[in-house]
Amino acid sequence: MKLATLKDGTRDGRLAVVSRDLTRYADASFLAPTLQGALDDWRRIAPHLEALAESLEHGSVPAERFHEHDALSPLPRAFQWADGSAYVNHVELVRKARNAEMPASFWTDPLMYQGGSDAFLAPRDPIVMADEAWGIDMEGEVAVIVDDVAMGASLDEARAAIRLVMLVNDVSLRGLIPAELGKGFGFFQSKPSSAFSPVAVTPDELGAAWDGGKVSLPLWVDLNGKPFGRADAGTDMTFDFPTLIAHAAKTRPLSAGAIIGSGTVSNKLDDGPGKPVEAGGVGYSCIAEIRMIETIETGAPKTPFMRFGDTVRIEMKDEAGHSIFGAIEQTVEEYQP
Amino acid sequence: MKLATLKDGTRDGRLAVVSRDLTRYADASFLAPTLQGALDDWRRIAPHLEALAESLEHGSVPAERFHEHDALSPLPRAFQWADGSAYVNHVELVRKARNAEMPASFWTDPLMYQGGSDAFLAPRDPIVMADEAWGIDMEGEVAVIVDDVAMGASLDEARAAIRLVMLVNDVSLRGLIPAELGKGFGFFQSKPSSAFSPVAVTPDELGAAWDGGKVSLPLWVDLNGKPFGRADAGTDMTFDFPTLIAHAAKTRPLSAGAIIGSGTVSNKLDDGPGKPVEAGGVGYSCIAEIRMIETIETGAPKTPFMRFGDTVRIEMKDEAGHSIFGAIEQTVEEYQP
Repeated sequence: MKLATLKDGTRDGRLAVVSRDLTRYADASFLAPTLQGALDDWRRIAPHLEALAESLEHGSVPAERFHEHDALSPLPRAFQWADGSAYVNHVELVRKARNAEMPASFWTDPLMYQGGSDAFLAPRDPIVMADEAWGIDMEGEVAVIVDDVAMGASLDEARAAIRLVMLVNDVSLRGLIPAELGKGFGFFQSKPSSAFSPVAVTPDELGAAWDGGKVSLPLWVDLNGKPFGRADAGTDMTFDFPTLIAHAAKTRPLSAGAIIGSGTVSNKLDDGPGKPVEAGGVGYSCIAEIRMIETIETGAPKTPFMRFGDTVRIEMKDEAGHSIFGAIEQTVEEYQP
Repeated sequence: MKLATLKDGTRDGRLAVVSRDLTRYADASFLAPTLQGALDDWRRIAPHLEALAESLEHGSVPAERFHEHDALSPLPRAFQWADGSAYVNHVELVRKARNAEMPASFWTDPLMYQGGSDAFLAPRDPIVMADEAWGIDMEGEVAVIVDDVAMGASLDEARAAIRLVMLVNDVSLRGLIPAELGKGFGFFQSKPSSAFSPVAVTPDELGAAWDGGKVSLPLWVDLNGKPFGRADAGTDMTFDFPTLIAHAAKTRPLSAGAIIGSGTVSNKLDDGPGKPVEAGGVGYSCIAEIRMIETIETGAPKTPFMRFGDTVRIEMKDEAGHSIFGAIEQTVEEYQP
């Protein structure tokens, strides 16, 4: 089934079940007022949501037109947002661009940062920033929402806890990252509010593209209306979601509704860095990556970060070409206090 | 007023107003079911809570006996937990112990890490860990809960957004920190679930000890029943709460219920490191600090981190000697899956 959170003036929105083709929805707030509410009691509520989704497909319940711009992020605020960096290729490129060696342990021990989760953007909200010089970048990613996960969970337990899958734009401020990471405490100001796809789906909606650990489909990232990335989220994902979840739960439990992200989707090409879409490659899911490749190849980056007015669109399509999660589509705007 | 969240079998507990002397409470769930609910609509709900607190003091509402062990953390789970490191003295000592220079900018640009907030411990919960070798440590801190804070908020706006004050035990796994910070993405596994004081109070409860930015009272930290720390939370706090809040809100808004921590309370002595309580000093709010001083003085740490069975108690008393927030009291236990 596909779930969305509709704008209704409240902080957590209203839960809805959305049709497979994303054209219609049925109000689900009589089953659970919010998605967090459903996740808090998933075992009891999910079967009722599944039944409603089934009825919606059959046209046997009242339905309304679903508009993606009426959706908040599936969890407009969450209690946990932990973002991995599972495409180690991406990390290796970052290091290479600044002539730094990547430790061998990065291939076996996942990188993960603790994100802020109190104010996610809606999927069509602008990215409002005070300063272009902060180096505004998108990061196209896949994320899962889990049920309760016990401390020290095994990979099997982690896999069994995955409830929903969605897309993320993990907005990053590249200009603030070096100084902030240099302080040693990780990201804070350099990782402002993220946005998630209009719809979160149960893994069964992904069919054969879901193997229990990753989504083997291209992530469509368009920058200013032009194809920028088509990297496959199932390729070069060194750490799958169960591995990331177990990593997050090593020293503490995770609570129902925790979001675990994949990190920027990134594919190698012939064991080297990828090529732009227009050059026949699968491109990139963030601007930083093409800038790193430009730096490696020519000594300096060429592609600018996002400027006021620039737009990014992030989407994933099934094999028939239909959008699975709806599209994140955001324009960068100047902050006016 | 003083607010607590009582255990009732639900994830978010039940809101209660607690008497000034912490002996009685009145159920407040008819005003807002949970503390997060009250914070979501503070302007409307706070006056009713204040009136109830007033009636409780006068004995004009039904009251029950308040037991601190019946309380969850005031926010059992939160949407935002951002912990500063405002006592720069502490940071300087950490660096000195490993012969690292502290950048001068650390005196002007706050250190802050993004904490996980989906599974806080109750104030009397054990600290359950799988391995003593992880270097289990407490960190005694003060924290505030804020209302909505706009992106780019001024210091005055940040100050005006402070709603509640409480104490924290920011549990840290010292053995995991060096390798984790070495990966560059900040804390994750090395900062497991924190616990907060049984009661959160409005700043007016602190009287003259609250100057709008910090709490000028000693933080009582006892280790295995013996005085370990009596550092004054108002002394050597380089960055006050408004500064920490504004730092957190530089590139994104904060949502009502966001928790901002002070970092480990730490006092200098004659511009050098402090002395143990038993030697006439104010001691320390974490074990790492005395170990750093031991390392600086003798070349090696002497005091061990917490072992299974060890207990920490964190409390703050007003000038008459009465507990303001109730006590965090936690025993370290071995994790049994």
